[in-house]
Amino acid sequence: MDRLHHIAIQVWDLAEAVDWYESHFGCSVAYRDDTWALIEFENIKLALVTPGQHPPHIGFATPRAADFGTLTRHRDGSASVYITDPAGNSIEVLDSRTLGPSKAA
Amino acid sequence: MDRLHHIAIQVWDLAEAVDWYESHFGCSVAYRDDTWALIEFENIKLALVTPGQHPPHIGFATPRAADFGTLTRHRDGSASVYITDPAGNSIEVLDSRTLGPSKAA
Repeated sequence: MDRLHHIAIQVWDLAEAVDWYESHFGCSVAYRDDTWALIEFENIKLALVTPGQHPPHIGFATPRAADFGTLTRHRDGSASVYITDPAGNSIEVLDSRTLGPSKAA
Repeated sequence: MDRLHHIAIQVWDLAEAVDWYESHFGCSVAYRDDTWALIEFENIKLALVTPGQHPPHIGFATPRAADFGTLTRHRDGSASVYITDPAGNSIEVLDSRTLGPSKAA
């Protein structure tokens, strides 16, 4: 069975949003810069993205990612392709074989 | 650490969307009626919801759900409250103690 690797939702004030999620839920901030933050929950990662930087989307991890299109290699070694589902939702399909154990969740 | 219990995204043609997710990913349809469907992935559930029935949202499971507001009990025994994060994203906070083992993922 495939996994959902992460979800990216849009926020306007990144600092305010990170503070809110950290103070309200048991989670930990894995990465943060001026444009986005990545928050780890037990079973999945939640990305908080600011407008114009990264589109809101959901990211799936599957060994068949290349079936969806040409994969782009990212700085962390992972490879993925962005597509849309039939309803127009933005989907990132990540090659699960390029995700280390710590990235798999 | 808290869990993300489910994600609900909006689709326009439910049959088309269910077929697309089933045919493209390793997943299984756990529930389906005329207004929405629930698709299980290895680590989380993806709800496909039609406009006007259920808002797109992300659902967190935490034992401290009651801290967020008055919980509503659902037909399956789970209890939750809908709120918004500071950016206006719709959030469902589910009481993790009302989720059975099969619902926890």
